[in-house]
Amino acid sequence: MTHDCSFLSDLDLDGAVSFDESARESHAADWVAQEAGLGVTPDAVVWPASTADVSAVLEAASEREVPVTPYAAGTSLEGNAVPLFRGVSMDMTRMNDVLDVRPDDFQIDVEPGVMGNVVDDTVAEHGMFFPPMPSSANLSTVGGMIVNDASGQKTVKYGEVADWVLELEVVLADGTVLEAGSKAVKTSSGYNLKDLVVGSEGTLGVVTRATLELEGRPEQIKGGRAVFESMDDAAEAVYDAVRSGVDTAKIELIDPLAAEMANDYFDTGLPEGAMIFFEFHANHGIDEEIDFFETILEAHDVAEFEIASDDRMDEIWRARDELAFAVQQYDPDLEPRHPGDVTVPISRYPDIVRYAKDLADERDLLLPCFGHAGDGNVHYAALVDPDDAEAEARAEDVYDSIVERAIEWGGTATGEHGIGMGKRKFLELEHGKGGVQAMRAVKGALDPNDILNPGKMFPETETEGGRVELPGR
Amino acid sequence: MTHDCSFLSDLDLDGAVSFDESARESHAADWVAQEAGLGVTPDAVVWPASTADVSAVLEAASEREVPVTPYAAGTSLEGNAVPLFRGVSMDMTRMNDVLDVRPDDFQIDVEPGVMGNVVDDTVAEHGMFFPPMPSSANLSTVGGMIVNDASGQKTVKYGEVADWVLELEVVLADGTVLEAGSKAVKTSSGYNLKDLVVGSEGTLGVVTRATLELEGRPEQIKGGRAVFESMDDAAEAVYDAVRSGVDTAKIELIDPLAAEMANDYFDTGLPEGAMIFFEFHANHGIDEEIDFFETILEAHDVAEFEIASDDRMDEIWRARDELAFAVQQYDPDLEPRHPGDVTVPISRYPDIVRYAKDLADERDLLLPCFGHAGDGNVHYAALVDPDDAEAEARAEDVYDSIVERAIEWGGTATGEHGIGMGKRKFLELEHGKGGVQAMRAVKGALDPNDILNPGKMFPETETEGGRVELPGR
Repeated sequence: MTHDCSFLSDLDLDGAVSFDESARESHAADWVAQEAGLGVTPDAVVWPASTADVSAVLEAASEREVPVTPYAAGTSLEGNAVPLFRGVSMDMTRMNDVLDVRPDDFQIDVEPGVMGNVVDDTVAEHGMFFPPMPSSANLSTVGGMIVNDASGQKTVKYGEVADWVLELEVVLADGTVLEAGSKAVKTSSGYNLKDLVVGSEGTLGVVTRATLELEGRPEQIKGGRAVFESMDDAAEAVYDAVRSGVDTAKIELIDPLAAEMANDYFDTGLPEGAMIFFEFHANHGIDEEIDFFETILEAHDVAEFEIASDDRMDEIWRARDELAFAVQQYDPDLEPRHPGDVTVPISRYPDIVRYAKDLADERDLLLPCFGHAGDGNVHYAALVDPDDAEAEARAEDVYDSIVERAIEWGGTATGEHGIGMGKRKFLELEHGKGGVQAMRAVKGALDPNDILNPGKMFPETETEGGRVELPGR
Repeated sequence: MTHDCSFLSDLDLDGAVSFDESARESHAADWVAQEAGLGVTPDAVVWPASTADVSAVLEAASEREVPVTPYAAGTSLEGNAVPLFRGVSMDMTRMNDVLDVRPDDFQIDVEPGVMGNVVDDTVAEHGMFFPPMPSSANLSTVGGMIVNDASGQKTVKYGEVADWVLELEVVLADGTVLEAGSKAVKTSSGYNLKDLVVGSEGTLGVVTRATLELEGRPEQIKGGRAVFESMDDAAEAVYDAVRSGVDTAKIELIDPLAAEMANDYFDTGLPEGAMIFFEFHANHGIDEEIDFFETILEAHDVAEFEIASDDRMDEIWRARDELAFAVQQYDPDLEPRHPGDVTVPISRYPDIVRYAKDLADERDLLLPCFGHAGDGNVHYAALVDPDDAEAEARAEDVYDSIVERAIEWGGTATGEHGIGMGKRKFLELEHGKGGVQAMRAVKGALDPNDILNPGKMFPETETEGGRVELPGR
């Protein structure tokens, strides 16, 4: 069903509105939905230029019960920004100003459309960084990171995006503007609406301003790479390092298959073994900490242990940062299916990696694995021939089994990508009937007409034509 | 109005129920409400022994629209556990088991009635600690800490309680049991109900189990004390240290008046100047970090800088930990009024301390100040003659002015004590109409009959007899 969005033209907006097909088509999908041909074209696109614009659009849309789906860089991986029920795609990328930097308070105020690398560059001038920044900093917006509660390689030391958002300005479905959180670094005042909006994927409100907390750059940064005889050894080594309290700032695992794919794509000549990439941050004693780490790795038959020079570090991390692209380009006859993002308690990390690799072998699937190992996070994606329906079914089954196992082991279906369309069917498995019921109650309270990004997060949503599922879901 | 709570006797509970006056009277107030004679006696007390008990009581109470106010150690400072509308006081202290310790995952599962020091002792055996533990560990329960989103002296380095709660089992008003959060260290799955319940003061649900995250004890711990010429110097020194990125694990400020009170109470012979107590945690290079800190303090005319031996440390911290008692006992003719708990961005810390001290001087009030300076948190309490109505009014006015100023400067009315009864009137000033409206919507969604700790947090609640306000509020 299309919605009459002509009301947008009657609003006195600072920003812009378009009903052109090309504008609408370009807001139909995010990365994964695009790949899967699962976009849904909105009826209109609006680019608000101010909080007042966002409020005016939402108030008018609420009155008319027209769906509004926030959109930014479109880099999400679960169909999070697909306007499933058409209506308005609200493109936040014109609200892309850095509003204020307060280095003495370790704070920066930004609009939601600011790109991650703009934050990086802005705060670097003050000797600071935004610790949970995802690897996709140059591709994704701060607003997107916030509403998906993203995280990054340094999350193992510093925590996820939620931990570094102090205050949000949010516009609710009816146009009400509120500030959630505080510029004080701690508060016990009222309900924590800030962390309710973080990770809510645009279904509870639209973020129009964020105060982020920053960290001073450590005096010492060093990193490198370790190669192991087997994936088991590598995963066990990560677990052992984490439980021993080794203070790593990054600790990433890459399996031999992913390493091969990276080599094909980047020609980086990585050894095609199970590998850990790591980085340490400290003000004092970084070498002692790395020595401690090496000792632990030696107990797991580490075959190579290399501390990299700065140049070499960049090369190493580039291979890791862009691994998702390497997977995508590996074989022209194969397409990667929906990427997995399970996270488990660290004691289960070797188990989940083993489970995933064994299952893929058993079911005859190429399934590269990599991820933020120190958090217990593993990304995986089955590569299948799109013309082979049977292989598609196997890939779906393997994907599901890994998620189900992660949840069984106390973990989560998604460490950092969100639920979107792609993981709705696991919401109840993870949170139970009571949890989902409470989430629905919260959604109903803040968006009674269900206009904000409808169809996401909650299971059993149907849209016209049944185009609601991502492949492998 | 009393409520017929005889239904409690008909429930098949593992725990106990009492309608005795002594049991009911002992659940009428928390510390501050007790002092102020502002208790409200519940109609019944129930001590659930299991999640099933909690669920059965809430379901039955919901059906009958009988208020239920969770109660634990009764050490809250904002009337948080006062059963304002009578009904049932639900005493959680029988659910006090440590359920599981998983040192390899840095996790402990506890029931809500477990005392803080039991957690301390249990995890110390594994070389771990619970970083946000408040100073009142031996007086307060984990459940109370969670629902007030408490914090402690080490919050400046490690964060508040919310940051260290991974998963909660929660019973909603209608008896529904749910799990919020995850045992994975990060998750982007669904709405963050966990952090909605943390700090909700028993108004959204009753916590029946918590998974807490732990930290390994650092290799190096050292602390000490610094004395300054003036409060201005001391507060500016704290600010300078924080903005310079000094990695302190504790940094507490005590004003000369509070020091005098501590000396009277403990006979500790503290110099009666403006003082900072501090502690450092590190695995490497603690002395270098402390040297850096000392350099910064020297720029603010530090008069004494002492690194303490372990024994001396205990003595120093005892004076700080029990300062609230020292304030209370200072003068038999004076009573401390409602303790302040404002928190501001660190750049405003010297300003808020100066503002508080100057205002107290100007208004001729004894107002000892102390607090978790590194967080921008200051506690203060005016001492007044309870028979002097004019002094009471001045004390209230000073209290209010400090809160209003903190909010104006981007801070919060409460860093760690919560809103309870005592700070309801500031909720809208801090969060705006939109924020309070959204909070009310969430409350209405999860507790439609308003049975859970009714009358707290939101302003303009009236109870019988108008006994709704704490002194100074």
